[in-house]
Amino acid sequence: MSKKTIIVFSGDYDKVMAAFIIANGALAMDDEVAMFFTFWGISALRKPKAPTGIAAGKSLLQKAFSSMMAKGPERLGLSKMNFLGAGPALMKKVMKAENAMTVAQLIDSARELGVKMTVCGMSMDILGIKMEELIDGLELSGVAAMLGDAEESDVTLFI
Amino acid sequence: MSKKTIIVFSGDYDKVMAAFIIANGALAMDDEVAMFFTFWGISALRKPKAPTGIAAGKSLLQKAFSSMMAKGPERLGLSKMNFLGAGPALMKKVMKAENAMTVAQLIDSARELGVKMTVCGMSMDILGIKMEELIDGLELSGVAAMLGDAEESDVTLFI
Amino acid sequence: MSKKTIIVFSGDYDKVMAAFIIANGALAMDDEVAMFFTFWGISALRKPKAPTGIAAGKSLLQKAFSSMMAKGPERLGLSKMNFLGAGPALMKKVMKAENAMTVAQLIDSARELGVKMTVCGMSMDILGIKMEELIDGLELSGVAAMLGDAEESDVTLFI
Repeated sequence: MSKKTIIVFSGDYDKVMAAFIIANGALAMDDEVAMFFTFWGISALRKPKAPTGIAAGKSLLQKAFSSMMAKGPERLGLSKMNFLGAGPALMKKVMKAENAMTVAQLIDSARELGVKMTVCGMSMDILGIKMEELIDGLELSGVAAMLGDAEESDVTLFI
Repeated sequence: MSKKTIIVFSGDYDKVMAAFIIANGALAMDDEVAMFFTFWGISALRKPKAPTGIAAGKSLLQKAFSSMMAKGPERLGLSKMNFLGAGPALMKKVMKAENAMTVAQLIDSARELGVKMTVCGMSMDILGIKMEELIDGLELSGVAAMLGDAEESDVTLFI
Repeated sequence: MSKKTIIVFSGDYDKVMAAFIIANGALAMDDEVAMFFTFWGISALRKPKAPTGIAAGKSLLQKAFSSMMAKGPERLGLSKMNFLGAGPALMKKVMKAENAMTVAQLIDSARELGVKMTVCGMSMDILGIKMEELIDGLELSGVAAMLGDAEESDVTLFI
């Protein structure tokens, strides 16, 4: 039993999927897993529907950035062969046929297995995303805490 | 003498080149190197010519995905300045002038130096790629085995 | 006190920013940090104005590649939402409003805190970039030296 740290920077469906497949694999082997979501990776944690009044404290530019970021894992694009959004839909069809879990399901599974998920506060400020927009049970964090997790880990990945 | 694990997720010529340059560097220093190819990274291992009858067990969508993926390392695009495929050709010209090895040559070199190359079975199912389409001597694998390699390594990279 | 190694392959503003935020965070905790710049990551180290006569020893293709690469950190594009260069400008506006440091400032800070920055000689040859085009105080290096740093580190990231 050891620890893994995964920095999720990317907001691409395929890369976020890879991050959670690795996380689930490690958790299944009784490893401790800390995931630190920063920048575009945060979009994977957004609720599909923004709570009302969420735009209140945002500047115009923050509204612009956050409105263009995907809302939740199933709205993310692919890093390759995205085809204006058709790629993810097609990939999910094959995944279903192959009994592979969607990213939303992988997130649920990781949480059931006890993953620690933290979000980068500085990225949230820059991109204009608020904690209420994200799924529950996340911890606001920063680079120092992430490095603390990484130092306790035998494997740290930047995805 | 220690061990390195490299997860090759990207199918970009420049990133796959970076992965193999690091692998060759480590192997030259008598390190053990395990490379785990997943998602787009698998395209670097495809044979330029698909064996006949390969499409037999593929669904329509799997055929679509696999037919759009590059066949072999020398058909990969660049992550930047690809220019619809002109970028890699130009880069290879400079590489030749500078006596730098192509990715195909780097793969050969790594294999001669004893690299362990495994492929992610789940990615192959989703992308509709079969073992017969890939170069010889690869091992079908999964996240658990990759994590086993990573735990034995002092450096693990996600590329 | 421990050591971190960061391989900066990407030349995207957001990814280079992430690399330097992590570096500064580790340096602030008295860690040793080695950054190895390779491929597109080297553009973050270029001086905004190329010294005269710099094109002298470059081949036509090297001139082409190097002329298309960004000159310095503040000319880099975003990996997402670049909008032909408008994205970085907008992001910098929000960053300023949020009191976040620019990449140029993060580089200065990391250097004051004693970061070790090395550049990949092979990438420089391929991309046609010369040492005189880069900011001062960098060390020309290669994969073997980078792996040496990585082996002494408890965290090594490929960004």
